[in-house]
Amino acid sequence: MIFTLRRLPGSDDVRVALPLVRRTRDPHEGQWALPGGWLDVSESLVAAASRTLSETTGLAPSYLEQLYAFGAVDRSPTRVVSIVYWALLRADDVSTELDSADQRENVQWFDAATLPRLAFDHNEIVDYALWRLRNKVGYSRIAHGLLADEFTLAELREVYEAILGRRLDPANFRRQVENSGTLIPTDRFRTGSHRPARLYRYNQDVELADRGPLGDRD
Amino acid sequence: MIFTLRRLPGSDDVRVALPLVRRTRDPHEGQWALPGGWLDVSESLVAAASRTLSETTGLAPSYLEQLYAFGAVDRSPTRVVSIVYWALLRADDVSTELDSADQRENVQWFDAATLPRLAFDHNEIVDYALWRLRNKVGYSRIAHGLLADEFTLAELREVYEAILGRRLDPANFRRQVENSGTLIPTDRFRTGSHRPARLYRYNQDVELADRGPLGDRD
Repeated sequence: MIFTLRRLPGSDDVRVALPLVRRTRDPHEGQWALPGGWLDVSESLVAAASRTLSETTGLAPSYLEQLYAFGAVDRSPTRVVSIVYWALLRADDVSTELDSADQRENVQWFDAATLPRLAFDHNEIVDYALWRLRNKVGYSRIAHGLLADEFTLAELREVYEAILGRRLDPANFRRQVENSGTLIPTDRFRTGSHRPARLYRYNQDVELADRGPLGDRD
Repeated sequence: MIFTLRRLPGSDDVRVALPLVRRTRDPHEGQWALPGGWLDVSESLVAAASRTLSETTGLAPSYLEQLYAFGAVDRSPTRVVSIVYWALLRADDVSTELDSADQRENVQWFDAATLPRLAFDHNEIVDYALWRLRNKVGYSRIAHGLLADEFTLAELREVYEAILGRRLDPANFRRQVENSGTLIPTDRFRTGSHRPARLYRYNQDVELADRGPLGDRD
């Protein structure tokens, strides 16, 4: 599962979006589903997740994290345990890779808040991932995965607003992140149609809830 | 994997402890390992975890949570993916169930901080679980799983100290938990050899990082 943020056309609203694949065979032929595939005997879980993602969507995120293993007996006509991985992609990575993904038939990006009925238990899986995302944004630097290395406070707030699904007060938000010690102000500014806004980056020295001793293992 | 807290004999120290099973066949015959077993085609993941736990240790925790799926290619002579569940047991639950568990040959409780070299990658799995436990204690009511329904602030602090592996200042700790809004003082007191200490319970109305929309599914 890949999440990114997309600005709705003709709007200031930024939303969480994800790519889905239209199933070309039964069960659930014609329905949209999360990209996935089988584990080869000689590949690790994360390697299989990367491979099937790249084969089905053309996307290759630099970092996938294990989300959850779904194994209810009735989730598929035959017994299938799905070990789901997820990634956050920065909007600029997506836009460069989107051309190739969009060229693939049967792959399409959806607004996570207004999904159709998906194949299997995939709506439940997306709901669980969105819940984890909302929780996680509070205690880790997960928002970083959706931003460029340097960003303005307004851009960071937009990420939080998209994930939490509600507006945040700009002054309160600024105070909270400035007090958290997780951001480092740079000497650079974003200029454009608005007045210049200072760029920040994440302080990598602050220990937050990351993957811990697992590192790159799976 | 089951964690509980145990007071070291002849000491005031409380430590995180877990039950291990001595392997009676190859690979790794004679080494200690986490309890586990195979998934039947007609049982859910959590049902299989409960069943194998009960068969091997005699313990039946009321609540198991999925920890992580371990699937490195070389973690076993044949390809094995282990979907690990964990539970926290209150010390009083353990002491009643311990007799039956201790009667089983080849089952023994270990101090999590001083484990021997375990079979397979089970040391890594325990290390990962301990890391998750340390992280989680900060942002959820996970400590609750190790306590009776009502507890003193000193008992709660002991849980945090055991998980974090360091002493906490009693006055600071009291201030932090009182400010958190997660505890409700009762009208009851623990009496005994010390001066009476007020009993608290967790405020179930505070929404913290629990399992979310998954509920009891797996």
